[in-house]
Amino acid sequence: MNPSVDAVDAVTGAAPAAVEPVNPASVRAAMERIRGDVRRTPLWRLPGAALGLACAEVWLKLEHLQVSGSFKARGMFNRLRAQKSLPAAGVIIASGGNAGIAAALAARALGVHCEVFVPETTPPSKRHRLVVAGAQMTVTGATYAEALEACLGRQRQTGALLMHAYDQTEVLAGAGTLAMEIEAEAGVPDRVLVSVGGGGLIAGIAAWFEGCTRVESMEPENAPTLHAALARGEPVSVEVSGVAADSLGARRIGSLAWPICRQHVAASYLLPDDLIAAAQGRMWTDLRLAVEPAAALPMAALWAGAVQLAPDEKVAVIVCGANFDPAALG
Amino acid sequence: MNPSVDAVDAVTGAAPAAVEPVNPASVRAAMERIRGDVRRTPLWRLPGAALGLACAEVWLKLEHLQVSGSFKARGMFNRLRAQKSLPAAGVIIASGGNAGIAAALAARALGVHCEVFVPETTPPSKRHRLVVAGAQMTVTGATYAEALEACLGRQRQTGALLMHAYDQTEVLAGAGTLAMEIEAEAGVPDRVLVSVGGGGLIAGIAAWFEGCTRVESMEPENAPTLHAALARGEPVSVEVSGVAADSLGARRIGSLAWPICRQHVAASYLLPDDLIAAAQGRMWTDLRLAVEPAAALPMAALWAGAVQLAPDEKVAVIVCGANFDPAALG
Repeated sequence: MNPSVDAVDAVTGAAPAAVEPVNPASVRAAMERIRGDVRRTPLWRLPGAALGLACAEVWLKLEHLQVSGSFKARGMFNRLRAQKSLPAAGVIIASGGNAGIAAALAARALGVHCEVFVPETTPPSKRHRLVVAGAQMTVTGATYAEALEACLGRQRQTGALLMHAYDQTEVLAGAGTLAMEIEAEAGVPDRVLVSVGGGGLIAGIAAWFEGCTRVESMEPENAPTLHAALARGEPVSVEVSGVAADSLGARRIGSLAWPICRQHVAASYLLPDDLIAAAQGRMWTDLRLAVEPAAALPMAALWAGAVQLAPDEKVAVIVCGANFDPAALG
Repeated sequence: MNPSVDAVDAVTGAAPAAVEPVNPASVRAAMERIRGDVRRTPLWRLPGAALGLACAEVWLKLEHLQVSGSFKARGMFNRLRAQKSLPAAGVIIASGGNAGIAAALAARALGVHCEVFVPETTPPSKRHRLVVAGAQMTVTGATYAEALEACLGRQRQTGALLMHAYDQTEVLAGAGTLAMEIEAEAGVPDRVLVSVGGGGLIAGIAAWFEGCTRVESMEPENAPTLHAALARGEPVSVEVSGVAADSLGARRIGSLAWPICRQHVAASYLLPDDLIAAAQGRMWTDLRLAVEPAAALPMAALWAGAVQLAPDEKVAVIVCGANFDPAALG
């Protein structure tokens, strides 16, 4: 095996547990690496009442405005910038779409080739963006897990650097820079609501805050990866489907994310697809935020009254991506 | 005539010149009045290089996220909140769409009826929003000017409070609160780029800054209202058409905006429709900002290289509205 390729777990394609930890120091190091590559996205602070909510403030982190159209650019640039050298074959990744788009843009910025494996559920808008970003795209398998299997096979042939959509330390630490930005701009919120697929984003955020705020997970009922793991006390494979499956369609919580989530995730919510779709529509109608379904889960939970808010609370909401066809909002 | 209704100019439907001035004091008073009604919109500061521009910083004022989907809410709420009492007939306005939507939402918030006259060029998405906002809508005339004439006739019958889309002191002062927010958050930029229809927004901004920064106007070639007035040395009626006519389709610069623009607008740019449409598309593709054509003029001018930027410059860009069908971005 090419020495620049991490060993991977047979099931998740993830790096083994005995790796560099994800903590505030690694998040700070990530920020130093990627500062010139990514955008500091706006933090929109509104009184709760402006959103019809009984809390003091809502802080919308508009991370869908990030390079690549999702938070994934932070992790992908950090993964690439952390390498001492890159193999001639470039990089390779399996993705529902967002991580692939980010990897392709990061690879292009560093002048290396990028291969992306996506499942058949990846929608046309994401496929189009992958191609525009310069990726060599292969569509294979019914789910992300199958695309990942094909990707790992191909990686063994080419020796390309494996980028993981949510289960490498650099990817988690990169995602954590988003939390670092929130704190730098506005301090520590009382609660942070985060959509969860494989758990890279929420783990990066939880690793940054280290328990000094409530980090809460938001998943579709149709893709309850972390919820099921928390219920079982260990990672478990679940079936995934529904409106947000192209972004939150990991079947199993990441091996690196799991111990961080088990320690730091204060509550886990499941949202039905109809509430997710309704929140996506309302975010456009009421707020003019055009976002993909995966980015609408926190507002879906808030608008449904699922989260019990205190009157003096400041709630941070991560608006994580907008790689979709905006005609869906019409 | 109902004493709560301003006398109006026969051509523009505007208040006469001998009215309360628009200056920093009136902008501050507006801010006090409307603080609880409108949103403090995000100011997204990016290095020029992040947008492919050779300047130090671009400050994107994301005013399309405002209540009502455009900056118009600031002026409309200020106009309504400034009244000591409101006539039983409520309020009435002629509009290409955005001012009408804002007036309807302001009227609803204050519990009064709202009649809106729009021309046939007002697109379905704006008509839909008007109805949802509770307006009694009349579609009449080929242009805003004809809708205004019908509106003025109706106002004389009903005695409703006339709201003007861009030519009342409260409307200009309300718009100026946007500039006040920029300065409070980031200081005075070196330049401010503003789309111009009837001139209410740019005049409010220029009145706030009082010459301490370069305020520059952006108009479609197909709706050169201020450009023509500056060339002639006085307001002049022009023909209007094109991709942004539903928002920037005033035929004549406002009587209140004109003296402020003549004194403080440092440069006037005209943009062809194809560049405006391309910038609207690129703002979505590169930045995930879903905005209407009128909001894309400043970025169109910057991306086309029409504005000569200094390397150390900080340029503020007003992203003024997003009342459109996002399917147009597909």
